[in-house]
Parts: sequence; structure tokens; C-alpha cells
Amino acid sequence: MVHIAVDIMGGDFCPNSNLEGAYDALQADKDIFLLLAGPEETIREAVGAWSRELQDRVSIIPASEVITTEEAPVAAVRKKKDSSLAVGARLVREGKASALISAGSTGAILAAGQLIVGRLPGVQRPPLAAMLPTQKGPKLFLDLGANVDAKPEWLCQFARMGTIYMERVQHIASPSVKLVNLGVEEEKGNALIKAANPMLREMEGINYQGFIESRDVIMGEADIIVADAFTGNAILKTIEGTVEFVMNAMKDVFKTSFLTALGALAIKKPLKEKVRGFKASEHGGAMLLGLNGLVMKCHGNAGREDIKNAILKSAQFVREDVCGRIRDAFTEADTGGDGSDV
Amino acid sequence: MVHIAVDIMGGDFCPNSNLEGAYDALQADKDIFLLLAGPEETIREAVGAWSRELQDRVSIIPASEVITTEEAPVAAVRKKKDSSLAVGARLVREGKASALISAGSTGAILAAGQLIVGRLPGVQRPPLAAMLPTQKGPKLFLDLGANVDAKPEWLCQFARMGTIYMERVQHIASPSVKLVNLGVEEEKGNALIKAANPMLREMEGINYQGFIESRDVIMGEADIIVADAFTGNAILKTIEGTVEFVMNAMKDVFKTSFLTALGALAIKKPLKEKVRGFKASEHGGAMLLGLNGLVMKCHGNAGREDIKNAILKSAQFVREDVCGRIRDAFTEADTGGDGSDV
Repeated sequence: MVHIAVDIMGGDFCPNSNLEGAYDALQADKDIFLLLAGPEETIREAVGAWSRELQDRVSIIPASEVITTEEAPVAAVRKKKDSSLAVGARLVREGKASALISAGSTGAILAAGQLIVGRLPGVQRPPLAAMLPTQKGPKLFLDLGANVDAKPEWLCQFARMGTIYMERVQHIASPSVKLVNLGVEEEKGNALIKAANPMLREMEGINYQGFIESRDVIMGEADIIVADAFTGNAILKTIEGTVEFVMNAMKDVFKTSFLTALGALAIKKPLKEKVRGFKASEHGGAMLLGLNGLVMKCHGNAGREDIKNAILKSAQFVREDVCGRIRDAFTEADTGGDGSDV
Repeated sequence: MVHIAVDIMGGDFCPNSNLEGAYDALQADKDIFLLLAGPEETIREAVGAWSRELQDRVSIIPASEVITTEEAPVAAVRKKKDSSLAVGARLVREGKASALISAGSTGAILAAGQLIVGRLPGVQRPPLAAMLPTQKGPKLFLDLGANVDAKPEWLCQFARMGTIYMERVQHIASPSVKLVNLGVEEEKGNALIKAANPMLREMEGINYQGFIESRDVIMGEADIIVADAFTGNAILKTIEGTVEFVMNAMKDVFKTSFLTALGALAIKKPLKEKVRGFKASEHGGAMLLGLNGLVMKCHGNAGREDIKNAILKSAQFVREDVCGRIRDAFTEADTGGDGSDV
């Protein structure tokens, strides 16, 4: 039985989307146990309408406070010790849950991950990682915004954690790793990239393939794409904005004539489905890797299905013991071993 | 009469697209004089077929070498002193031309700009800037890749140069300036952004409006969008890649049924025209600002019309005396004056 904590008060549509997503996940996977953190009465009322079998796999964890997206994240997490997010994070910290799902404030989730759940030994910074839908299928992209002013060592650790995730959860043998750069020529790059590149080449157990240009990220030209948080965030948000921009341009074109309006009728829906992957989340939310448990961040406007998927994907992550593998990898690295003598 | 140098041997379709674009520009603007740098015989032959009136506004500047995109840029510019690019850049350096157009290797153009044309007094780094087509019309976006490991002072200078360009050439009064960041909250950012933000707020004559998220760059939420070269390059290339990705997705959808194929027929062409702005260049190429003359870089696959537009836009830039204004602004800044006592 995998134990997963859910921040019931996170996201634009809380508590309903979280409660409904929890319900759907329990229906879909019989080996999940959920710890629902939030206002006791509200949760009790919702859960009271569920079947006995589902109720037996739920525990209500009272939390009286809520952290909003307007609050300064670190201060909010420190002050609101009885917030649904902080309570959920403590459940992971104390080993009562193996993962935490929240659709709340990104900053607060990052802070709760670092301050409450805590890093695995040897991990310098926990990157925010997500499966990005690309032309060649979903690829792992990290760091999406967790750790500014990156050091070369952090990027190497991101490559290591990404490799473990892709091997274990996505079942890709020897996943390729590329580093985002201005160009693919060896002499290009800023100081960070120039320092990280030879270090990545030296790493054992990492299938490092050199640089990738930003335009090829969406083309899926690597299984794992590593960037510093500032660049990763810029690329991810530019993809979102550009998809929206092109869809808007299309709407304008549709309106220009009777013919194009007819054309629109035919292609609107299939096209929307084709590109909606950028906003949707069949692979769950963005993951904070390298902590004492998984912290998964869903989009603020996550709906019922997004929460369900996040819970199911988290369960898979836990079953594959990604945290344990990361801990092993970094403990070995710390002691200078290559794994063979452990 | 505006004198403009053209690197005849730059770009994938050289020398033809450059020669044809030069011809079209001379036809379109009677007050342009072109200095065509490249292989004498080839140019003479092409120009020989032009009308007498056009021939009178052309000077052939022999250059026997060519710099390819495969060469290390700085070394190539230093070594190949008789390359069409280096010869063209010297024409600007010596005041024989006010601008240089090239569709050659980006790195070599940046190097020729810095090493041969040279910076205006007070300019720390010349940013690569371009008019980006956005949802709210074309906006100036810089630095697109010229100066890695930016210092906060450079970003402030980029804002100043961008403001002069938008006021003079695009005739926008008090153009708004925003700085690309992870989020719009005041406390967000990496060390560079946190240092540059208060400095930009202090600047006189700059309509600084704070942060912009990458997703809003393409939405055109500022007249001038400032980023360090690494981030600017990442955003620009991500936009290009994502537009291509969505257009490919559309092609797939078109193929799925008879109805969608019919729909495709109707909307394909108008949509292509709507989004082609990202690859085309009605605003000319990307400009290196802050040099002793304009250096304009066209896309490697620039065609006849792109070269023509680049020449016409350069002439406008020269007539508005953007370089002179930048020199004045930075000379004043250097002496501590605010302009009123000069």
C-alpha cells in the first residue's frame, strides 16, 4: 500500500478538484492509501459520501490554515505550521506518507519541500522536473525554476537524478542527457555551461550527449534536458505562451471568411487535443527531486483529472523507489565509491 | 545619400539573394548608395545588367575571401582580412558606409562588429536586438545572444539603447521597458536580475515597468524587452521551435480525415502568413547596437526580399541617427551629466 498525502486546500479549484481527484485515484488504484490534509469538517463531509471500501483507504489529517499564492512563500511556510501544505509536508517528513501532492503556490511548495520534507543526503539542490510533451514523445526537463544561480555541480546532480527517474519510472535504458546552450558548438556557452560541460562528460552512468539548442527542446532531441532554473523556466513558459499565441492566431484566421470558418469547424477539436498536452498533465505535475520523499506540484488550475493523474503517477514513482535510488547514488558518490564495492 | 555596405558572400543563397536584394533596395529608395563587398568579377557581371541609374549608386569593393559558418568566428575575422565580411566592416569603421548588412555566420558578424567596427565610447557591450512580432505588434527584444555572463550595468545600457531605437525609428514616445524574470513578484530573480532591477528603476529617461515573465514576451507586454543573452537566445529559439512544432502538429491533424483535409485547404495559407513573421524579417535583420555604425545580421537563409528589407530598414536607422543618439547618451552618462548641461 502506497501512502500519499494530498494538500486539499491547494489550487484555484480547491477543495473540490482535490477531493474529486482523490476519489478517482482511489477508484483507479486499489493499492493507494491517501492522507487528506485540510479542514476536517469539509473533508469528512465529502468522504462521508464515498463507499466504505474507499473510506477505509483514507485518513483525514486536520489542518486549519491555508497558504495563498499572494503570501511570501518561505515566511508563509514557516509561520503557518497548521496549513494544509505544511501538515502534508510533515507527513512525508515523518514517513507517514511517501509523497505529497499540491496544486498550491509554487514558491510555497518549493519552500515546504526544502524546509520541511528536506533533502536526501548528498543532494545539493532539489530540481523541479517535469515530463514535457515533445515531437518525439514526453521527455524529462529540469530544472524548471527551483534553484537560481546554479553551480555546475548542481547541473551534474540534476543529470544524475533525471537519469534515475527515466530509467526507473519511464523504463528507458541509458537515457540520453543534453545541456541547454546557445549553440551546439563546443566553444559556446556562458561560464556555467563551460564549467558543467566537461564535468558531465566525465560522469559515469550518464549518457551525456552534449549541448542542445532551445529550439530543439520541444523537438525532443534528448530523453533528459538539463538547464539552470532561470533558463528552464524561460523555455517552459515561452513554450506555453507561444502555443497560446499560435492558437489565438488561428482563431483570427478562422474568422476571416466563410471558407476558413468551415475549415475551422473540421480541425479545431483534433488540433486542440493534439497540443493540449502542454497544459494538461497525464504525467502528473512537476516533481521536486532529491527530497526525503516525492513532492509533486500540480498546476494552479488543476482539475479533477489532473489531481487523479498526479496521485497515480506519484504512486508509480514511490513503487519504483526513485528516492531510494537517488539516496544510494549520492551516498556512493559521497564516499567516492562507484557502486561496485558497496 | 545613405551609404550602406553589403556582404555579398554571406548567407546560404549568396551571392544571388544579396545581389538581387541590393537591386530591389536601390529601386525602392533613390537615396541609397550601396558598397558591395565580394568577388569583383561576379559582382561586376551582375551589376552590369542593371540600369545606368542604379549602377551610379553602386560601388564594387573587391574582397577575395569568404568566412564560412564552420569557422571559429573570432579567428576567422582576424585571419581573413580580405573576407567580404571583414572588408564590409572596415568600410563602416572608416566612415565610408554607415551600416553593414550580412547574412553570414552570426558569430563572425558579432566578432566583426566588436573587433572591426568597434564600440561607441561608453558602450560596454553591443547587444543583438530585433523586432519580434508579438500579439500586440512588433516589439524590441534584446540581447538575443551577443554577450554571455551579463553584468547588471550591461542590461541598463541595453534598456537605454533600446529606448533610443524605439523612440527614433519606431516613433514610440516613452516606450515601456521590462526585464525578463522567473516571475513578476519583486523578490524573485537570480543575482543578475536582483541587481539590475533597482538600477533600472533609478534610470532617468527610461520608462521601466519591472518584470515580465517569458510567456508574456510573445504577447508583447512591453515595447522593449530586456534579457541577458543566454535567456534572450533561449526565448527566441524556443518561440521559433514551438511555432514549427505547432505547425507540424497541424499538418498531422490535417491528414487524419477527409473533413480535416478540407479544413486544411481553407486555412493553411492564411495561417502561414499570419505566423510567418517569426521567420521573415519585414523589420530587417537583428541589429548590433552601440557600435560605430549599424551592423545588421540577416538570417542565414535570407532571400532576396529579406536582404532588400534589411537595407531599407538600415537606411531608416541611419537617417534617424540612432548611433549618434546612443553616442550622445553614453557620453553624457560618462561625464555624470543628465543632458541639461551639455
